[in-house]
Amino acid sequence: MSSSSVISNGRSTAGKSSAATPGRLASVYSEVQTSRLNHPLPLPSVLTKPFKIVDGPRSSAAGNPGFSVNVDEIAKLFPGVFGQPSAMLVPTDSAVSDQKLKIGVVLSGGQAPGGHNVISGIFDYLQDRSKGSILYGFKGGPAGVMKCKYVELTSDFIYPYRNQGGFDMICSGRDKIETPEQFKQAEETALKLDLDGLVVIGGDDSNTNACLLAENFRSKNMKTRVIGCPKTIDGDLKCKEVPTSFGFDTACKIYAEMIGNVMTDARSTGKYYHFVRLMGRAASHITLECALQTHPNITIIGEEVAAKKQTLKNVTDYITDVICKRAELGYNYGVILIPEGLIDFIPEVQQLIAELNEILAHDVVDEGGLWKNKLRNQSQQLFDFLPQAIQEQLMLERDPHGNVQVAKIETEKMLIQMVETELEKRKQEGTYKFQFKGQSHFFGYEGRCGLPTNFDATYCYALGYAAGALLHFGKTGLAVGNLGAPVEEWTVGGTALTALMDVERRHGKFKPVIKKAMVELEVCMNLNPSLLSKSLSHDEILGAPFRKFASMRDEWALKNGYISPGPIQFIGAASNDINHTLLLELGAQA
Amino acid sequence: MSSSSVISNGRSTAGKSSAATPGRLASVYSEVQTSRLNHPLPLPSVLTKPFKIVDGPRSSAAGNPGFSVNVDEIAKLFPGVFGQPSAMLVPTDSAVSDQKLKIGVVLSGGQAPGGHNVISGIFDYLQDRSKGSILYGFKGGPAGVMKCKYVELTSDFIYPYRNQGGFDMICSGRDKIETPEQFKQAEETALKLDLDGLVVIGGDDSNTNACLLAENFRSKNMKTRVIGCPKTIDGDLKCKEVPTSFGFDTACKIYAEMIGNVMTDARSTGKYYHFVRLMGRAASHITLECALQTHPNITIIGEEVAAKKQTLKNVTDYITDVICKRAELGYNYGVILIPEGLIDFIPEVQQLIAELNEILAHDVVDEGGLWKNKLRNQSQQLFDFLPQAIQEQLMLERDPHGNVQVAKIETEKMLIQMVETELEKRKQEGTYKFQFKGQSHFFGYEGRCGLPTNFDATYCYALGYAAGALLHFGKTGLAVGNLGAPVEEWTVGGTALTALMDVERRHGKFKPVIKKAMVELEVCMNLNPSLLSKSLSHDEILGAPFRKFASMRDEWALKNGYISPGPIQFIGAASNDINHTLLLELGAQA
Repeated sequence: MSSSSVISNGRSTAGKSSAATPGRLASVYSEVQTSRLNHPLPLPSVLTKPFKIVDGPRSSAAGNPGFSVNVDEIAKLFPGVFGQPSAMLVPTDSAVSDQKLKIGVVLSGGQAPGGHNVISGIFDYLQDRSKGSILYGFKGGPAGVMKCKYVELTSDFIYPYRNQGGFDMICSGRDKIETPEQFKQAEETALKLDLDGLVVIGGDDSNTNACLLAENFRSKNMKTRVIGCPKTIDGDLKCKEVPTSFGFDTACKIYAEMIGNVMTDARSTGKYYHFVRLMGRAASHITLECALQTHPNITIIGEEVAAKKQTLKNVTDYITDVICKRAELGYNYGVILIPEGLIDFIPEVQQLIAELNEILAHDVVDEGGLWKNKLRNQSQQLFDFLPQAIQEQLMLERDPHGNVQVAKIETEKMLIQMVETELEKRKQEGTYKFQFKGQSHFFGYEGRCGLPTNFDATYCYALGYAAGALLHFGKTGLAVGNLGAPVEEWTVGGTALTALMDVERRHGKFKPVIKKAMVELEVCMNLNPSLLSKSLSHDEILGAPFRKFASMRDEWALKNGYISPGPIQFIGAASNDINHTLLLELGAQA
Repeated sequence: MSSSSVISNGRSTAGKSSAATPGRLASVYSEVQTSRLNHPLPLPSVLTKPFKIVDGPRSSAAGNPGFSVNVDEIAKLFPGVFGQPSAMLVPTDSAVSDQKLKIGVVLSGGQAPGGHNVISGIFDYLQDRSKGSILYGFKGGPAGVMKCKYVELTSDFIYPYRNQGGFDMICSGRDKIETPEQFKQAEETALKLDLDGLVVIGGDDSNTNACLLAENFRSKNMKTRVIGCPKTIDGDLKCKEVPTSFGFDTACKIYAEMIGNVMTDARSTGKYYHFVRLMGRAASHITLECALQTHPNITIIGEEVAAKKQTLKNVTDYITDVICKRAELGYNYGVILIPEGLIDFIPEVQQLIAELNEILAHDVVDEGGLWKNKLRNQSQQLFDFLPQAIQEQLMLERDPHGNVQVAKIETEKMLIQMVETELEKRKQEGTYKFQFKGQSHFFGYEGRCGLPTNFDATYCYALGYAAGALLHFGKTGLAVGNLGAPVEEWTVGGTALTALMDVERRHGKFKPVIKKAMVELEVCMNLNPSLLSKSLSHDEILGAPFRKFASMRDEWALKNGYISPGPIQFIGAASNDINHTLLLELGAQA
């Protein structure tokens, strides 16, 4: 086992400027990419010395607050791994046995900056603490596990991917291991490669499947353990012990750079309202974080829209009201952030789409519009309220199952049109007399594969290193997690994946799901302001990002407190900053 | 006059962390924005010591190669300023008289990163070399000159904008000073403020107007001189003496960061073709530069499409051919760059739109489509070739003059649809059997207002400082320019604006225009390869960026040599890199 100081000096990367047979060639790297290769990756101090694992109390289910969980059903679904204690790494005097391990790693789902560093972390753990071990990278996601398509990862193979964005070292995929046949295939792979462990790097679905796989291996008395690693730029996979999913920090900073630029443009030009749609279909964490970083005039948080049961008209009116107030102050420009999933948060839209699906499947849609009478009253009103282009999109674009494709609706363009219509109405009424020009943006793919920030680079490396440790100590069915900052003080451990779960009833069966962590409003909305001065519980702290935003938004709406975060820096100013969401959720004073 | 070393240490910024009454408050700055405030701005060495101006030979017209110019008409339009020699700053022993000046500055047209530094440069020149001078910032563009809306710029006012993006210090506008009444208004402002000079920061149109203004002031025997400063992210305002317009460097690097991220995403996901439309309506410099920075699989250069008289079908076929070849190699993904102005470069599209404008203005458009018979044969074919959504867009969206709005066509989406159709056809024919999924992107506004790169920050500061010097020496009707790198060795001077001009015949009159500098292909296309080893003329060197691209594109098409430039860095790796276009045009070996 090598000494800690060597690792924290970036041992595994030093002096390897020419990679042997990598998928990537350092020769076609930009200067910035090259400069990142040898960026040192410090480890939490507990990982730099000998450590042992201390178990916590027996776990239950649903680590997320506010859910009523069917614990019994979860226990039944996971007889082998349910109730496992959390695991915490603590310093010790004697090193763990220098057993040789065979470990697999797989990337699952959409890209998030830092995935390559998780793999680097696992690899370096094995090099440092379990010499002679082998790391297999399964190619193309879970399908690679099932088909036993893999590459043996070597130092030379991994090197060009250190601190680099993307998932292209072994690529990812969206297949799932969930049917008995698929479990069988995974077993065969595990047996063939004699796997001691598998690290599944993925989002909520993938971590649910990781737990099912852990359960399955255990039920077959196989030695293969499974550890999940929380990945998603959306930031909706987290709990007390796993404070953030990797990639969120980088993606938000990339989007915030763009938003800041657009803000400066808006202020300089003085005549455009920029409607910016941001990734995040299920939860609005990205939108909220970008708002905290940049101070836009209007930010729509999907969870709030849903909690307040707002209609599309409510949202439109809110935006239009702010635009009118700003016009009176002399500002005919602004920046508006919208979460990708906004439409999914509006109950009446869901209702309309369900009705449309029925009508389109079974009825004739006549040119005269008589078919509209089949819509319920509220749905008919909503349909008529929608801009024509959106109406047409709803009628025309269907997925292979004949369903309306909500995902194809460009929400930002729809809102621009609805605001235009509302402003036109107010012009007629004489309550608005200015010019409105909307510009639409969607910031999406450009944030998933950027070079990881220093935070994500370090966080991911520690996650990978800790995942190696958990497997080394024989743990299974855990999600790897770290807490706190700065990095040296991070605690490291694992949390029972079943503790994050709930069940959903599908096709008459209970199906386990890791609950997505949504933007926390409830606690905050119900919180007595006088409590703010007291020390807050974890649940209360989870509301801190929204609370901070809610306390500022009226000021941001009418004054222009735009902030331009600028491009991500790897050295110097702000290069080691942590995003606002995580900082606030860790209890930093707002 | 302060000593040079003090200036190049960023004298004007040091120790002023609290600005007095600025439009921006440093308190709402991000850490990166704040860190840029005191970024030192070195000056070309000739500007750090006493200098004098040496005149070159009498100038003619059209600094750009390949144009046949109506020199006589330009001479007639500018009797006062035509033929002025270029001006070069050279070291001398004695300082220029410490005359107090009253100078105005105005921003004209779209934003480009670095505008604030031009103003800072003018201000610092006056502080250093002409103590007691006054600098007026005209607000909201040329309208501010005409309406005499201005702010007196002070050190405290300017400080928060140093090295910051945007034009919001005094804002910009798109008005023009061109009618006799408008000239009269400008004269009144010049007289009222007792202006010795005016710096017009703008693109080709604005510099043309700057020259008209210079001519007008001179014809009235007014003392007010006018200097133009080349600004446009499009990079199409340049000549031998003005090697680049400011903002191009930053904008391209911002776009290249995004493109690089999308490339990593494409390679990781393995199933999307990303069609990226980039700003640049008239010329394709941005697209070409981004291609040189990132190595996409396909890049369409508008100037080449025009030169080869390609049709939309030619472009579609080229893209489709590459997609098919890549599919055979196992790559069902890729990245494609398209200049915003592509459609304007395709002659048949221009023809179709002209015919549509006629028909829509004078004829009935029947549902049955009989109206289409009024189109010429080729136009009818093209119309039928277009995707339905584009057909509808062409028929429906008209500007206030009743013309089809070409600018509203989302070229990247149109190409995706046309490629889909063509691939479907090939599938039917059995020559293609893979999956194609297109993703569209438009990178535009987010590039115009970023924090300027070190290059743009330094370049702009030098441009402003030199503009101050040219006015101090009584020059008028010149464009300020710098040459060469590194910055200390830059030569500094001015070029007669009339030397960049040609005339166009409009409404029976000759109208002066500064010719846009397009991507140079001709010289390169006609160039004997054996010449490449010899030393090239300036015209030949202008072809270097396209030549470099053309020599690589077949390799980039089939191999994946993607480069991810990463976010712009202000310290460390690549922070002082200059864009490929400028480097190659300055004669660097490819």
